Amino acid sequence: MSGDTHSAASSSADQSLADALLHGAEVPRRRALAKAITLLESTRPDHRVRGDALLNTLLPHSGRSFRLGISGVPGVGKSTFIEALGLHLIGLGHRVAVLAVDPSSTVSGGSILGDKTRMEQLSVHPQAYIRPSPSSGTLGGVAEKTRESMLLAEAAGHDIVIVETVGVGQSETAVSAMTDMFVLLQLPNAGDDLQAIKKGVMELADLVVINKADIDEHAATRARAQITSALRLLGMHGHPDHAHHDRQIWHPEVIQLSALKQQGLATFWDCVSRFRALQTANGQLAQRRQQQSLAWMWERIEAGLRARFKAHAAVQAQLPDSIEAVRDGRLAASVAARRLLDLLV
Amino acid sequence: MSGDTHSAASSSADQSLADALLHGAEVPRRRALAKAITLLESTRPDHRVRGDALLNTLLPHSGRSFRLGISGVPGVGKSTFIEALGLHLIGLGHRVAVLAVDPSSTVSGGSILGDKTRMEQLSVHPQAYIRPSPSSGTLGGVAEKTRESMLLAEAAGHDIVIVETVGVGQSETAVSAMTDMFVLLQLPNAGDDLQAIKKGVMELADLVVINKADIDEHAATRARAQITSALRLLGMHGHPDHAHHDRQIWHPEVIQLSALKQQGLATFWDCVSRFRALQTANGQLAQRRQQQSLAWMWERIEAGLRARFKAHAAVQAQLPDSIEAVRDGRLAASVAARRLLDLLV
Repeated sequence: MSGDTHSAASSSADQSLADALLHGAEVPRRRALAKAITLLESTRPDHRVRGDALLNTLLPHSGRSFRLGISGVPGVGKSTFIEALGLHLIGLGHRVAVLAVDPSSTVSGGSILGDKTRMEQLSVHPQAYIRPSPSSGTLGGVAEKTRESMLLAEAAGHDIVIVETVGVGQSETAVSAMTDMFVLLQLPNAGDDLQAIKKGVMELADLVVINKADIDEHAATRARAQITSALRLLGMHGHPDHAHHDRQIWHPEVIQLSALKQQGLATFWDCVSRFRALQTANGQLAQRRQQQSLAWMWERIEAGLRARFKAHAAVQAQLPDSIEAVRDGRLAASVAARRLLDLLV
Repeated sequence: MSGDTHSAASSSADQSLADALLHGAEVPRRRALAKAITLLESTRPDHRVRGDALLNTLLPHSGRSFRLGISGVPGVGKSTFIEALGLHLIGLGHRVAVLAVDPSSTVSGGSILGDKTRMEQLSVHPQAYIRPSPSSGTLGGVAEKTRESMLLAEAAGHDIVIVETVGVGQSETAVSAMTDMFVLLQLPNAGDDLQAIKKGVMELADLVVINKADIDEHAATRARAQITSALRLLGMHGHPDHAHHDRQIWHPEVIQLSALKQQGLATFWDCVSRFRALQTANGQLAQRRQQQSLAWMWERIEAGLRARFKAHAAVQAQLPDSIEAVRDGRLAASVAARRLLDLLV
């Protein structure tokens, strides 16, 4: 088969894939979505070309969802929460997609969502689509695949996309940078909030949820008060009685619930809906998405520039010596950088 | 004058500059250091070439100082503290250089150290050299000049280099990444510590100094207790009575002093000296410098790659359209990035 014939065949097959994903009945649509995401996750250059073409075809049909980022340390009850929330949303008539960003999955083979049985009912529900984290190397690479999968899930008619992440390195920042609203799940533990502040995650949060509030209600109430006052000190949480409290701007809220007992889900979704309405009205939602897209483009350009630099023959030949000379203090780092850059011509 | 003659003349002049800087008497040595730093800060390409040559000549004579980073919000009393500390150190027989990283100086014309009269006695002392922040654009650019100036100051025999920064954006991270020890100056105010935790500055601190402790001793003691417990919760501060408290590893400390009344400077320097001895013994000091040099090299390479990308003719022609298409949602960000990268050939 010649390259052209192959490409034409692929192109026709990909058109059917796009059709099934956009307009198919429930079962073929889910299958098409899974297949399209697998194509995007492939590292084969020809798959990359086909994946880009597919993305371009489907892009006009994407974007019509609400994108909800959810983070929390292991043990906070993310799976239980997302399963309960997903089923609640399906009950309200939504179609839900659950994706994940887990850079550690490269090593572990996927700790988040790898085991779909952790969301027993949601994973088999026809109105839901659950996809484990891609495992393609760097956080940037993993995040890129998840972003692209999100666009496909939207084109396939999922109007709520949940992106889950565990608190590893910068993954929360990556998820916050691809979603409309970032929710931080916390346990009712003292010190937990300080860790979140330390890592800069609290700053990203549009909503802090204290889960497992049923286990120790006093601790949960105390945690809520602590986090609220921390948000206030960080300048993120407006004083309700403050004259300058701007009702056109969202101030992060703190709520408590029990995902296990399915208590507080309606309150949670009410909060999300108020956020969405406000951010739509004040234009922040559209602006945030535009900024996210541009930041994503630059992030990918920089990753590409780094990769090209490291793959350049003259750089590869020189780099080990430069690293050694800089480490040993024989060459100033800035001089080494300029010399390496000069090799690119 | 032909290019070659010019270059030979420059080269001979630069050799005299290097000699004066390394071996000159007090006054010509200071003048040579100032002249050399000015050469490094120049944006003229021929100056850059000469600056690199000078750096390479002087590099073997650099590195023999202790590099102390000092940060704190405006009003915390940095100038008073550094002047008092500098004079104290000169009294102990040291030669002190004070440099600064202030990315805002591009706009303001230099808020830090711009007015040397803020350090009246130190600035005129023959054993001290004070240099305001370079003002060459980005934080990365400013930080690079300061790093290079540090090497020259070391070659000129300054065995204590203090790098000052005000808490603007990521400048603390930049200073922490070029010094052996990072000191955070705090006021005895509640909430001040939370801001530092929020911004991730507390994590960088090897030592937290509560200044102006004379004004309200109770507040200072309270702040010290708060910050100590915050450091403990952040996992940075070991419990002294803890069985696993590792005496081979530095645990950040919190002290209080009054720079204005010159109280506590000996305690401060004792703490710094213990840090330096421990970090030298456990190998952390050498390792930190190696890591800093390599990270600096990569930071400069990435900045150079970005600059080259933006200066590429085909990219410049295409970029505005790409940005518009990505912002309007007509083109996926990752696809736009790949297309722009393909233009580089």
